[in-house]
Amino acid sequence: MMNVLAVGCHPDDLEIGCGGTLAKLAAAGHRVTMAHVASGDKGHRVIAPDELRRIRGEEAQMAGRLIGAEVISLDEPDLGVKQDTDALIRKLTALIRRVRPAYIITHPPEDYMKDHMEVSRAVFDASFAATVPHYETEGGSAAQDGVVPIYYMDTLAGVGSLPTEYVDITDYMELKIQMNDCHQSQIKWLREHDGIDFLDFVRTVSKFRGLQCGKAYAEGFTQCRAWPRLTTERLLP
Amino acid sequence: MMNVLAVGCHPDDLEIGCGGTLAKLAAAGHRVTMAHVASGDKGHRVIAPDELRRIRGEEAQMAGRLIGAEVISLDEPDLGVKQDTDALIRKLTALIRRVRPAYIITHPPEDYMKDHMEVSRAVFDASFAATVPHYETEGGSAAQDGVVPIYYMDTLAGVGSLPTEYVDITDYMELKIQMNDCHQSQIKWLREHDGIDFLDFVRTVSKFRGLQCGKAYAEGFTQCRAWPRLTTERLLP
Amino acid sequence: MMNVLAVGCHPDDLEIGCGGTLAKLAAAGHRVTMAHVASGDKGHRVIAPDELRRIRGEEAQMAGRLIGAEVISLDEPDLGVKQDTDALIRKLTALIRRVRPAYIITHPPEDYMKDHMEVSRAVFDASFAATVPHYETEGGSAAQDGVVPIYYMDTLAGVGSLPTEYVDITDYMELKIQMNDCHQSQIKWLREHDGIDFLDFVRTVSKFRGLQCGKAYAEGFTQCRAWPRLTTERLLP
Amino acid sequence: MMNVLAVGCHPDDLEIGCGGTLAKLAAAGHRVTMAHVASGDKGHRVIAPDELRRIRGEEAQMAGRLIGAEVISLDEPDLGVKQDTDALIRKLTALIRRVRPAYIITHPPEDYMKDHMEVSRAVFDASFAATVPHYETEGGSAAQDGVVPIYYMDTLAGVGSLPTEYVDITDYMELKIQMNDCHQSQIKWLREHDGIDFLDFVRTVSKFRGLQCGKAYAEGFTQCRAWPRLTTERLLP
Amino acid sequence: MMNVLAVGCHPDDLEIGCGGTLAKLAAAGHRVTMAHVASGDKGHRVIAPDELRRIRGEEAQMAGRLIGAEVISLDEPDLGVKQDTDALIRKLTALIRRVRPAYIITHPPEDYMKDHMEVSRAVFDASFAATVPHYETEGGSAAQDGVVPIYYMDTLAGVGSLPTEYVDITDYMELKIQMNDCHQSQIKWLREHDGIDFLDFVRTVSKFRGLQCGKAYAEGFTQCRAWPRLTTERLLP
Amino acid sequence: MMNVLAVGCHPDDLEIGCGGTLAKLAAAGHRVTMAHVASGDKGHRVIAPDELRRIRGEEAQMAGRLIGAEVISLDEPDLGVKQDTDALIRKLTALIRRVRPAYIITHPPEDYMKDHMEVSRAVFDASFAATVPHYETEGGSAAQDGVVPIYYMDTLAGVGSLPTEYVDITDYMELKIQMNDCHQSQIKWLREHDGIDFLDFVRTVSKFRGLQCGKAYAEGFTQCRAWPRLTTERLLP
Repeated sequence: MMNVLAVGCHPDDLEIGCGGTLAKLAAAGHRVTMAHVASGDKGHRVIAPDELRRIRGEEAQMAGRLIGAEVISLDEPDLGVKQDTDALIRKLTALIRRVRPAYIITHPPEDYMKDHMEVSRAVFDASFAATVPHYETEGGSAAQDGVVPIYYMDTLAGVGSLPTEYVDITDYMELKIQMNDCHQSQIKWLREHDGIDFLDFVRTVSKFRGLQCGKAYAEGFTQCRAWPRLTTERLLP
Repeated sequence: MMNVLAVGCHPDDLEIGCGGTLAKLAAAGHRVTMAHVASGDKGHRVIAPDELRRIRGEEAQMAGRLIGAEVISLDEPDLGVKQDTDALIRKLTALIRRVRPAYIITHPPEDYMKDHMEVSRAVFDASFAATVPHYETEGGSAAQDGVVPIYYMDTLAGVGSLPTEYVDITDYMELKIQMNDCHQSQIKWLREHDGIDFLDFVRTVSKFRGLQCGKAYAEGFTQCRAWPRLTTERLLP
Repeated sequence: MMNVLAVGCHPDDLEIGCGGTLAKLAAAGHRVTMAHVASGDKGHRVIAPDELRRIRGEEAQMAGRLIGAEVISLDEPDLGVKQDTDALIRKLTALIRRVRPAYIITHPPEDYMKDHMEVSRAVFDASFAATVPHYETEGGSAAQDGVVPIYYMDTLAGVGSLPTEYVDITDYMELKIQMNDCHQSQIKWLREHDGIDFLDFVRTVSKFRGLQCGKAYAEGFTQCRAWPRLTTERLLP
Repeated sequence: MMNVLAVGCHPDDLEIGCGGTLAKLAAAGHRVTMAHVASGDKGHRVIAPDELRRIRGEEAQMAGRLIGAEVISLDEPDLGVKQDTDALIRKLTALIRRVRPAYIITHPPEDYMKDHMEVSRAVFDASFAATVPHYETEGGSAAQDGVVPIYYMDTLAGVGSLPTEYVDITDYMELKIQMNDCHQSQIKWLREHDGIDFLDFVRTVSKFRGLQCGKAYAEGFTQCRAWPRLTTERLLP
Repeated sequence: MMNVLAVGCHPDDLEIGCGGTLAKLAAAGHRVTMAHVASGDKGHRVIAPDELRRIRGEEAQMAGRLIGAEVISLDEPDLGVKQDTDALIRKLTALIRRVRPAYIITHPPEDYMKDHMEVSRAVFDASFAATVPHYETEGGSAAQDGVVPIYYMDTLAGVGSLPTEYVDITDYMELKIQMNDCHQSQIKWLREHDGIDFLDFVRTVSKFRGLQCGKAYAEGFTQCRAWPRLTTERLLP
Repeated sequence: MMNVLAVGCHPDDLEIGCGGTLAKLAAAGHRVTMAHVASGDKGHRVIAPDELRRIRGEEAQMAGRLIGAEVISLDEPDLGVKQDTDALIRKLTALIRRVRPAYIITHPPEDYMKDHMEVSRAVFDASFAATVPHYETEGGSAAQDGVVPIYYMDTLAGVGSLPTEYVDITDYMELKIQMNDCHQSQIKWLREHDGIDFLDFVRTVSKFRGLQCGKAYAEGFTQCRAWPRLTTERLLP
């Protein structure tokens, strides 16, 4: 059994990008940890930040419970995630050292808004720092033994994204929809702010990725190709 | 009003890749010509090539009639389209000289099977040859005055494709489905051969391209970037 | 009529990269706002920063007046533009909310010096932040309704740049030269510091982009391809 | 157990590019077929083509025997492999239909000399044709049910190649060397013609690919990304 | 002193793409051979092919004489250059074996029309074949000892081209213009057919490449990156 | 004779990436300055940072002495190199102004860990700032006259790296090994932390780059392609 750490930016990003894969991993008995870096506090036109931060934290917990995943918030403010902040890297490093993942799933380095990209780069940095004993973090966990692989989710709406890895999530599609459905504040916001039917949006992307690889529903990923994160886990194919 | 020439490989490829755009162009009063290079004669597990060639020719005519487009078959055999054949280039050149398009839509240079790619390159070559007076073709049409722009449709299932141009086809989506529905032989073949619900496949790709550009349905294109095919038709955006 | 916001780094960067397009837009009746992020205070070997800052501000105003554009300076120091600074993002966000552009023109993410790249990324970030009501800015303008498209100008000297959009500026080339000629401090500096005839340099790049697309003079752009900034404004071509 | 088909250009190309992977697959009980398209008849400065063709055929058989693989020659002349030849595509299609592979390994589309590239494209074409019942081939094998995945080996010396898949061949490195050592005619030719110590060359590339993925020795591959060849065989990593 | 072989498609392509570099090489005492593959027989709207072929052959000789270069025509018909023709590869191979170049300059693999691209690939193929003793050619020249480097000129108008090598041709710009001016038939044709001032076109591209690398005029190249054509001729820069 | 400035991140990075080239440059009489930005203080599992910082500083001096290079430490803490820090840019700018290099060698913008990437970008920024007189630095050196070329070394283990420049280091390979062997603290750490035989690792990468360009050992580089850093130093090849 593996420990898998997924790090999204906002409370619903993991559900959108890799909810089916996480559900499948959890169903296979792996231990899944879902972290979101930003509290999502500014993700609504009306609800005030403090109130929204609380609501979205609860929504994320609810979604995680559906698959038995631990849910963690790093509680950075929306539009204020900064990779180059020592405090954020240390929080992420401490998390990685505690979870000790076999690999990490996060946002790709280029995405549709800055906070997502900052998370991607912060995860890249922290997962290296996690292996350096003299880089100290709270909580007392020892340094990791090796730098772990990172898999990047699709960008939002798959713009500019050409997956090299596909995970068949056909059997977990409805569970993925339920996980996304937990994020009621966001679903309403997107409907009002951008005129987007969020659940249909999520389903369409998964269906599109599915027809690319011959399944009903799938999620696409790319691998972070940096030394020493390359793997030889499988014999082809 | 413009003349627009769309050149697909098999009798249904244009309907899949740019049916909505063609319908929209036709509805706006432009003259649309739909050509398919291969007869589609081997696109069925049971129906014999000669019989299938006839059936698919009729299906293509039916689809074209729905939008008032002229439909042309260059009648090459499936798995036998060869860009480097003088006869094919001459047929295409004669067609271009007769239609005198403002631009051409065809397959991208890389796609999921060889015949598609051969068509793409043959169109590129023929649209240049069409401007050379001493390159003679049947039918007596004069050489074109200038090399025309080419727009490439999506690959099948959008694999490896990152559109740079999007056309909103929301108002023409049902017509696009009807155009595709004309290709009954192919719809059955794909269902049987690959387990694919063809119309749902087509709808999903158009819906995915739509959500990428904020519309209900869209089609994606890239422009052939070769001198002197670049255009300045529009002032941004 | 559209509002168009162009954001350059130094006081002359917009004139170099998109002066002809801005002139053409203004002549067509659109409202053009030209902002420069850095004051250009260190852009001279002899003139002291405070003095130069004042001179270049006036030069920019003069250039803008030629096409009836509003000219704004965000007044950051040269070699000190930092995307990751909350103050800069807020200034840019406030500007966007006030101008309410249909689209934004700015530098590409990779260019020949850091301040240019910082501006590009800051514009990307601020144009998203501008749509978030709880991200507060001075001036009291309401949040934008949607994230707007961004078009990137050429890099300096077009190094590493492959435009996907061309704007024919033939009729505005002399006006573009006049706009650039307003920046006398810079013209002299470049001549002295790099041995470059600035106006000839500008003309050559526009002429080169013109011959690529079959016009006497043109400017090249690429589109920021990130959700939800993709557009379906035009029917091909 | 899978059938794996590897198609190289010359009699030693598979040993160089994927000998370790084939040895590992064979050791795991999979059925491995090694085909070379060209006879290798011109691969020597002195030995005459007819004689060399015979010698190299025997060398290939010897190498295949070391891992229990079937070895097939399509017997095209060196410098005369042409993808666009119906005869070659039919021979390859017949081979694929007989072997019925789970996937195919071959050269990448771009490599250091033309015959290699022609083989890559011919394999791509034939593996599609193999699924079309009305495309007839000798030998009477039925059409394949589905288009199979293709994995591309490294280019020669890895020039221009960035693998996305790595196979750990540490336990099979010496066997790979023995397979390559069977090609005595080629080893001598390369030493004389290019001053290259062939076995050391092979070992160095495998060692380099190994250190990229944290193993003593490895082989690198990329996947052909074309519909419907994408796979979901594995759950990450 | 080196032998340098430049292979263009039409009689004026080398003058456009690398005339300044060839003039500079010749002036430095290197032996320059200029070959054109197509006779240019269809490059005029009025002059008949046979007549034009003769005229352009003379124009090419005249241009070559200006720099003391040998000029060779392979005399293929316009719109009929085919890389996959054994006869063409043998003619090119024989030429390479006779000239024994230190390196070859030719068109890039992607350009604005097919004949150019066919030449590029044929040169790539022939320069490999030239090293294979048992690949026989007319004229009796022995096989080359090693595969030589290839440098690719700019595409026409530099569309899609990002040079990695720049050659300062400031001192040879006027000579380059004179070389191009020899091609009177083409200059008139382009002026009439495409409305292009050919000599100004050529000067503008060279001036643009010059300002990219800080010279008055330059020509841009990319290197063919395929084993074993990579070089270590220079110590940086 | 040239001044060459090489800027690595940690005390051994230059020895790994370009030790052979620096040795060759020094042997040819050029003045070589080797700077490392981070002190390397956290590069050991047991030795404490302060102690390690001292040890690694001495190791770097020892390595530099082998080729007569000046060795400079900018003394930033490991995992704390930040490009966007004014202090770091000023230190680097002052260094560049003092050394007045003909060109700079540093890390590529993408590499396996953040500090390396920060160094690459800081060098890019500082080498521009060095030419701006009103950007003041300690030490009193005047501004550079022109922005200098930058060459990027390979990434660690060459992952994701496709060199465009190769330097033959065959005659300097043993000296390169000796330079690396000075870094005893790091050699032990890598052996213990990652199970890597450091000297064999270095030798294998150099051997691989050598076989790509036909030499026993080589180092690969890419050039920073940004205006005005492009050069025309050589006539091809």
